Amino acid sequence: MVKIGIAGGAGYTAGELTRLLLCHPEAEIRYIASESHAGEHVSSVHADLLWCDLHFSEIDFNDIDILFLCMGHGVSQAYLEGHSIPEEVKIIDLGNDFRLAKDAGDFVYGLPEVSREEIKKAKHIANPGCFATSIELGLLPLVAAGLAPEQVTVVGITGSTGAGQKPTTDTHFSNRTANLSNYKIFTHQHLAEIGETLAKSGGAVVPDIAFVPVRGCHSRGIFSDIVVRTEASLDEIKELYKKYYANHPFVCVSDKAIYMKQVVNTNFCYIHLAKEGDKLLITSTIDNLLKGASGQAVQNMNLMCGLDECCGLMLKANYF
Amino acid sequence: MVKIGIAGGAGYTAGELTRLLLCHPEAEIRYIASESHAGEHVSSVHADLLWCDLHFSEIDFNDIDILFLCMGHGVSQAYLEGHSIPEEVKIIDLGNDFRLAKDAGDFVYGLPEVSREEIKKAKHIANPGCFATSIELGLLPLVAAGLAPEQVTVVGITGSTGAGQKPTTDTHFSNRTANLSNYKIFTHQHLAEIGETLAKSGGAVVPDIAFVPVRGCHSRGIFSDIVVRTEASLDEIKELYKKYYANHPFVCVSDKAIYMKQVVNTNFCYIHLAKEGDKLLITSTIDNLLKGASGQAVQNMNLMCGLDECCGLMLKANYF
Amino acid sequence: MVKIGIAGGAGYTAGELTRLLLCHPEAEIRYIASESHAGEHVSSVHADLLWCDLHFSEIDFNDIDILFLCMGHGVSQAYLEGHSIPEEVKIIDLGNDFRLAKDAGDFVYGLPEVSREEIKKAKHIANPGCFATSIELGLLPLVAAGLAPEQVTVVGITGSTGAGQKPTTDTHFSNRTANLSNYKIFTHQHLAEIGETLAKSGGAVVPDIAFVPVRGCHSRGIFSDIVVRTEASLDEIKELYKKYYANHPFVCVSDKAIYMKQVVNTNFCYIHLAKEGDKLLITSTIDNLLKGASGQAVQNMNLMCGLDECCGLMLKANYF
Amino acid sequence: MVKIGIAGGAGYTAGELTRLLLCHPEAEIRYIASESHAGEHVSSVHADLLWCDLHFSEIDFNDIDILFLCMGHGVSQAYLEGHSIPEEVKIIDLGNDFRLAKDAGDFVYGLPEVSREEIKKAKHIANPGCFATSIELGLLPLVAAGLAPEQVTVVGITGSTGAGQKPTTDTHFSNRTANLSNYKIFTHQHLAEIGETLAKSGGAVVPDIAFVPVRGCHSRGIFSDIVVRTEASLDEIKELYKKYYANHPFVCVSDKAIYMKQVVNTNFCYIHLAKEGDKLLITSTIDNLLKGASGQAVQNMNLMCGLDECCGLMLKANYF
Repeated sequence: MVKIGIAGGAGYTAGELTRLLLCHPEAEIRYIASESHAGEHVSSVHADLLWCDLHFSEIDFNDIDILFLCMGHGVSQAYLEGHSIPEEVKIIDLGNDFRLAKDAGDFVYGLPEVSREEIKKAKHIANPGCFATSIELGLLPLVAAGLAPEQVTVVGITGSTGAGQKPTTDTHFSNRTANLSNYKIFTHQHLAEIGETLAKSGGAVVPDIAFVPVRGCHSRGIFSDIVVRTEASLDEIKELYKKYYANHPFVCVSDKAIYMKQVVNTNFCYIHLAKEGDKLLITSTIDNLLKGASGQAVQNMNLMCGLDECCGLMLKANYF
Repeated sequence: MVKIGIAGGAGYTAGELTRLLLCHPEAEIRYIASESHAGEHVSSVHADLLWCDLHFSEIDFNDIDILFLCMGHGVSQAYLEGHSIPEEVKIIDLGNDFRLAKDAGDFVYGLPEVSREEIKKAKHIANPGCFATSIELGLLPLVAAGLAPEQVTVVGITGSTGAGQKPTTDTHFSNRTANLSNYKIFTHQHLAEIGETLAKSGGAVVPDIAFVPVRGCHSRGIFSDIVVRTEASLDEIKELYKKYYANHPFVCVSDKAIYMKQVVNTNFCYIHLAKEGDKLLITSTIDNLLKGASGQAVQNMNLMCGLDECCGLMLKANYF
Repeated sequence: MVKIGIAGGAGYTAGELTRLLLCHPEAEIRYIASESHAGEHVSSVHADLLWCDLHFSEIDFNDIDILFLCMGHGVSQAYLEGHSIPEEVKIIDLGNDFRLAKDAGDFVYGLPEVSREEIKKAKHIANPGCFATSIELGLLPLVAAGLAPEQVTVVGITGSTGAGQKPTTDTHFSNRTANLSNYKIFTHQHLAEIGETLAKSGGAVVPDIAFVPVRGCHSRGIFSDIVVRTEASLDEIKELYKKYYANHPFVCVSDKAIYMKQVVNTNFCYIHLAKEGDKLLITSTIDNLLKGASGQAVQNMNLMCGLDECCGLMLKANYF
Repeated sequence: MVKIGIAGGAGYTAGELTRLLLCHPEAEIRYIASESHAGEHVSSVHADLLWCDLHFSEIDFNDIDILFLCMGHGVSQAYLEGHSIPEEVKIIDLGNDFRLAKDAGDFVYGLPEVSREEIKKAKHIANPGCFATSIELGLLPLVAAGLAPEQVTVVGITGSTGAGQKPTTDTHFSNRTANLSNYKIFTHQHLAEIGETLAKSGGAVVPDIAFVPVRGCHSRGIFSDIVVRTEASLDEIKELYKKYYANHPFVCVSDKAIYMKQVVNTNFCYIHLAKEGDKLLITSTIDNLLKGASGQAVQNMNLMCGLDECCGLMLKANYF
């Protein structure tokens, strides 16, 4: 059994991680820490978990194999500096502190579809961002094959859980329901990690991405429409994608048009390709809290600990 | 033209009032006051109103006929004490400060279906609460006819706008969407005004109401299911309701089962009656921000100013 | 491994059953039958299941241990008459053909919280209805203890999946979203099985239930508010409920108010009790497709096959 | 008073038209025809209209000034051939039969922001499509100024009402809620009328549009994100748009980012412009049933009949 500690236990990603690990046959949550809720039952925050027997507590770093950092972006580094953690404890950071090459140190960017072998040997993982995961998986085969043009347009629609737990005007139900709006137009912080990951793919051209993030009126799920102009044929491109993901259990290339809810509450990424003249649409959809956060973190844990990559991750979709 | 001032202009009910009055053929908004937004265009808060030419400002009480108070509950009284308002300015308070007999002074409880003639002559109106309006209109004919039993059960489902503008955990989209929960079980603050209004109806029995308010996963609208045991026949009761509301333009008794969206974005209350054995269901549905707040306030204004009761209130329903 | 056949494989409950059994460590789906989709991959209907390797086919009854019937109500009986199924094949019917005593034959009503020992020995199970499960679990401890009054009021709000897969006016998104309405007022077909189940509890009084089913604007989940008048104290009643469900892993009695999404995409029933004067509110919430259908069917299968009752049913809630 | 006849009275657009015209101070609905509902009260279909006194009937063409055709696409032409309509009756067709130059005859394409003067003199109007209206208004100033590049990408998200009234799998609430999907990828039928309208603008370049329509999980509203690469400055472009729409009361260019619900249940189009490097985002949002259909039809009627363009169209937004 892999022994787990979770820091930052009161947030959304920690909640999802806890739900996943409570059902994981090879993992055991030893500690889930939250300063603001120390001593309380986890259901005081993650109210569905009334049925389990887990309380927020401090972490004994000597008694765990893996530490998950589920803190707000920019806090992980300070946490690692402030705590002395035994060398043999593996760390998976769900924040963005160590994703970019300039910050990474020995942290490996944890996208298994690009770096599975590296991840298996890594001690420290920087878990990718949610939009980044969706867009990278959508573009990687095309870029790696040298078929990407210089310019790409992406409109990505995300659920309210992407904005975190804190109530704000933009996550107020009265505003959000039946509504749509853009944010961080062309300037989303994930663009940097997307650029680095695509560059690693080996393709000659790393496209300049015009990325418009949209606030959708749903809670979970990212749906990215990636528009590209290319002369390559649809058959050629489909073949490319199917080959690229043939050995990756969590990415499915669908011949039929896809719906976001096919992946909601799962660790899958579903991809669809369509073409008309020189216009290519790549649609890539994930659950932002799973393949876009906590599910991918468990996938990385599985790889780091020598478990089956899918262990504990074959989740019942919430299809309706 | 009736000259209007609005105090507490940044809240939901003030927003709705402004939308209504901007389209009202006999009214003119002279001032809309907000301490927190003084000087700004109204669209800084009520963003849809970009098209109009209205700024938050102070109110010159000498230049208005009607003052609407749209402040938080419990603030209106302090406001009136802190400002010297000319005697001839009529006041409509949308808060709950003056609704109960013990607090009312010369404020008339503004439910036109009970007190139309009084309202026409009133200088000060206490505008009813949203749940109160829905439940009172549902029970009044039955109670007035002496057919109400001692005990009544009401489950009323309300939209998120009923909880106001402030972002909270319970109005967070991620929590509220696709969810249901109860609150203020059997203790909702509107029970007192409901009791007083039903008592005024002249019926012998004022029932004890077991009222369960439910947070629905919609933004606008209240849907109250009122369950009663009675030996009276359905035909007799229907007749009673149709007669009671025959001269009230905003209450419709429907022979067919009703849907909440029939009244959303309108000032109507729709009522449906169904019976099986001794079990009677009275369903009463309104838009909480209109017939349950700002629409009823304008209805009261129309009556107080000698206008047609429906003036400016025949709104296009947002049926889909 | 328990070998499974599913008849009526294209419906909602069959879809959920398939999702559950694909992740169940002790079960193996051998056949999933659908006349209308014979030969197709299951994702042609259950589109999220693109990742698995399962096709609609005929069932070889000699090669299965358990047969699940997921047909429309009223079809199961005809199916059993039309097919010759070996005696040793156990059958779980998710329809309503065998739920009532007059129709049951050797079918046992499969509510484990009432009949666990009987179910363990049963060959044929009539799986309870969704509203029935929610209301029975809410009332059983009270009725069994002889504390139920003669009259009870229930308002139960259900998701659109309760209405099945066929597109209708009432499940059209444009109508259903942000809307509420009643249906089958006081006449819902589950009242009969509720009455029989409560009668089996041993309590002296089986209450007459005024039940109002409400169409909610969500997809999954039932939220039943049960209102009762009683002189018993809240403490006494809470104690009663906690004792009654102490050995039943899927029913949790919560001291805090509950939210429907605590149980969505799980097999749990969460119950909350609140009291004010003589007014008692029992709130009972389940996922209509899981504890209200396919989850409970798997729970019954587990019991019939000597497996752990929870096997394959500790699902990650879709809490947000 | 303009005397109105409506053909195809049972559909969504006829419903909206009826709601608008019932509140229009200068119009009077004389006839609303529906073959399938002849003789019934309009609330048998448009259930919110219980309060009015209007029945489906045949149309006496000699007694109307304007005929609105609200039939399915492709039916209007047959209707006109099958009925002999007096020459002096003006016709507004909400279908797509007469929008393209090759089909138009004497029908004028009714986008007032392009052809107001022509519309004033027209006898026959082809009312634009919903997506077409949104995209045309978003691109017109740029194209007219000769600043549009050869290639444009549009992702437009639409509500379920855009798919009409007929219940289908894709409008089933269980599928549509909390979901997203693409349809008619790069092949939407409105592309042709968009091309013709932009060509009329006088700009040198009519861009090739890669248009991805997305099914959103809301009922009303279109939100179009239009991505363009250009060297022109944001200030220059904003100036351009504000000047272009200065005399058009229903188009507002917002300096702040926009939300779809700012225009829902109104006849407005709100436009926002943002730029970063050479990437320009034009966001254009409308209510698909109003500015995208029935509202624009009334706007055209106003112009054709010499009324104020805004008459009866200053609607209370359903902002929450």
